[in-house]
Amino acid sequence: MSTRIIEVRHGILKKNDELAARLRARFQEAGVFVVNLVSGPGAGKTALLERTLAMLRPDYRIAALVGDLATENDATRLARSGAPIRQISTGTTCHLEAEMIEDALDGWALGDLDFLFIENVGNLVCPASYDLGENLRAVLFSVTEGEDKPLKYPTIFNTSDLALITKIDIADAVDFDRDLAYENIHRVRPGLPIIDTSARRADGLDAWLVALKEKQRATPVPVA
Amino acid sequence: MSTRIIEVRHGILKKNDELAARLRARFQEAGVFVVNLVSGPGAGKTALLERTLAMLRPDYRIAALVGDLATENDATRLARSGAPIRQISTGTTCHLEAEMIEDALDGWALGDLDFLFIENVGNLVCPASYDLGENLRAVLFSVTEGEDKPLKYPTIFNTSDLALITKIDIADAVDFDRDLAYENIHRVRPGLPIIDTSARRADGLDAWLVALKEKQRATPVPVA
Repeated sequence: MSTRIIEVRHGILKKNDELAARLRARFQEAGVFVVNLVSGPGAGKTALLERTLAMLRPDYRIAALVGDLATENDATRLARSGAPIRQISTGTTCHLEAEMIEDALDGWALGDLDFLFIENVGNLVCPASYDLGENLRAVLFSVTEGEDKPLKYPTIFNTSDLALITKIDIADAVDFDRDLAYENIHRVRPGLPIIDTSARRADGLDAWLVALKEKQRATPVPVA
Repeated sequence: MSTRIIEVRHGILKKNDELAARLRARFQEAGVFVVNLVSGPGAGKTALLERTLAMLRPDYRIAALVGDLATENDATRLARSGAPIRQISTGTTCHLEAEMIEDALDGWALGDLDFLFIENVGNLVCPASYDLGENLRAVLFSVTEGEDKPLKYPTIFNTSDLALITKIDIADAVDFDRDLAYENIHRVRPGLPIIDTSARRADGLDAWLVALKEKQRATPVPVA
């Protein structure tokens, strides 16, 4: 890449960071805990979110934003949970940006929410560079993707607070090497908490919810 | 995205298109047939390429370029075939660009090659927008990714000349709906040829090689 292009890229990221900081302050003020789900395409973000909404909904007030290049399929699917859902269509942009989040929140009373989930565009690269003001970034990593992916896409693992191995129910069918996957994740991000999950069989979802609730409780809320 | 950013993006793509046109002329002049393999992360580009190199190598002169953010794992893996392999490390860039290809070819005698394979960065979005001067773009789509992906990432299917369904050996384990996948691919790109493959079981590789050889033979070569 030429110097000019790198400069423009830095400019875009700097602007995004400023907007993300503003969003973060707004989320904290409203007392809403924001989770950014990132992964490659088809790792199972929507399936996990469907389950998560269903399990949290009885006790918490939740909404979700869903990013995709095209279609409203995921929003339609998630709306069945009864939670407020908005789709963000990114066109040809391969990630969500803070500005898109700000626009999509228009008209929502954030103070009425306990959790806001953001499902990013399926991409292991660029979503890593775009802060959305979230409290927690969770990277999903499916047993079908190959144990080497943390080494090949280090930034998304480096910048995440939690990793979810997904589709653990088909681990045997794809000869998934769990030890190697853990080792590779911890090579790029030592100590990153990892939870094995299957949305289909509901494995690991209790541990995921415990982690979410603990982190939400631990997040400082504004003095009323 | 603001107008300024869209303008810069158009500028980058225009420059890439010019370089790609120059590369295409160079490839044609040298009589080398160039294949660009694109897919999401973990769809099996390297596994397919390993098989392809092994099967073509007795009769054809082949080289490959492999793009990744980090690591030389794929190049090391492919080099076992005996073919000349070069790794392109893209850093934080989520796709290959024509300029990277031009740089990576430095010192190679293209006239001595029948096939040049380019394995793109694992990403269903941006590689669609970057022409690399290739003769054939093949999109890989794994049975584990979900049948809806062609609708959610239409551009990469729209701009491809051939689709390969991969990991067909685990189709049952993941409840893959083949008819729906075909229907969705053809909704975004009517008539796109599709081959079902499994690099593990060697399914569909003969059909893939027949397609490659036919297309290579059909490509006009320069008058000596």
